[in-house]
Amino acid sequence: MDAKSQKDIQEPIQKEKIEEKIDYETFSKVNLRTATVLEAERIPNSDKLLKMTIDVGYEKRQLVAGIASSYSPEEMIGKQIIIVANLQPRKIRGIESNGMLLAVQGSDEKIVLIAPETKGENGLRVQ
Amino acid sequence: MDAKSQKDIQEPIQKEKIEEKIDYETFSKVNLRTATVLEAERIPNSDKLLKMTIDVGYEKRQLVAGIASSYSPEEMIGKQIIIVANLQPRKIRGIESNGMLLAVQGSDEKIVLIAPETKGENGLRVQ
Repeated sequence: MDAKSQKDIQEPIQKEKIEEKIDYETFSKVNLRTATVLEAERIPNSDKLLKMTIDVGYEKRQLVAGIASSYSPEEMIGKQIIIVANLQPRKIRGIESNGMLLAVQGSDEKIVLIAPETKGENGLRVQ
Repeated sequence: MDAKSQKDIQEPIQKEKIEEKIDYETFSKVNLRTATVLEAERIPNSDKLLKMTIDVGYEKRQLVAGIASSYSPEEMIGKQIIIVANLQPRKIRGIESNGMLLAVQGSDEKIVLIAPETKGENGLRVQ
């Protein structure tokens, strides 16, 4: 057994325990909002990326998300999602993405969107 | 028209525009996870608060949330929710709450839970 393997056994990754605790103020810096997908299309030469136009209530935006393995463009249209609304815009494959969509990925690799339990207004702040 | 009214017109609250932008690192400090409600009960002498036991996958926890105006204890049991998993525990009415449940409140005042679109594993990190 080499040193690395031994270390692995002696110090298993306890990510839940070492996670840094945050206060409410840190959480409140992250602006999560409801939004509805208006348009969606695959990004050429990518298996993972969808480009979407979303309605965040007070404005429309373009957003790129790596969900194409689990959601087709057609099934995204009309869905209400949750986005990080105040994230710095960034370019993904040269395409501007203004916000980030929330999702989880299970042990089966399937991506599942996070959404309000029942569809409602866009632009509502998640609290 | 008094000074205050005039100010309201000249400087409408543009909260979306003045919101501070954050980077991905700030978002990643907030640990959002899937969890399922195992038990739920009203907190005596409160119209708003429910006390719940939740399963976060790697542990069970007690959480207090102000959702009783829209959700009965009975309908919460078995629901999968999203929580801020690394929030400092705090006491609400003397009862420890370890985490915060995510929800939105529409203009009709109704509270709507945020949840995975389809129920899956507990403890998954929202990304």
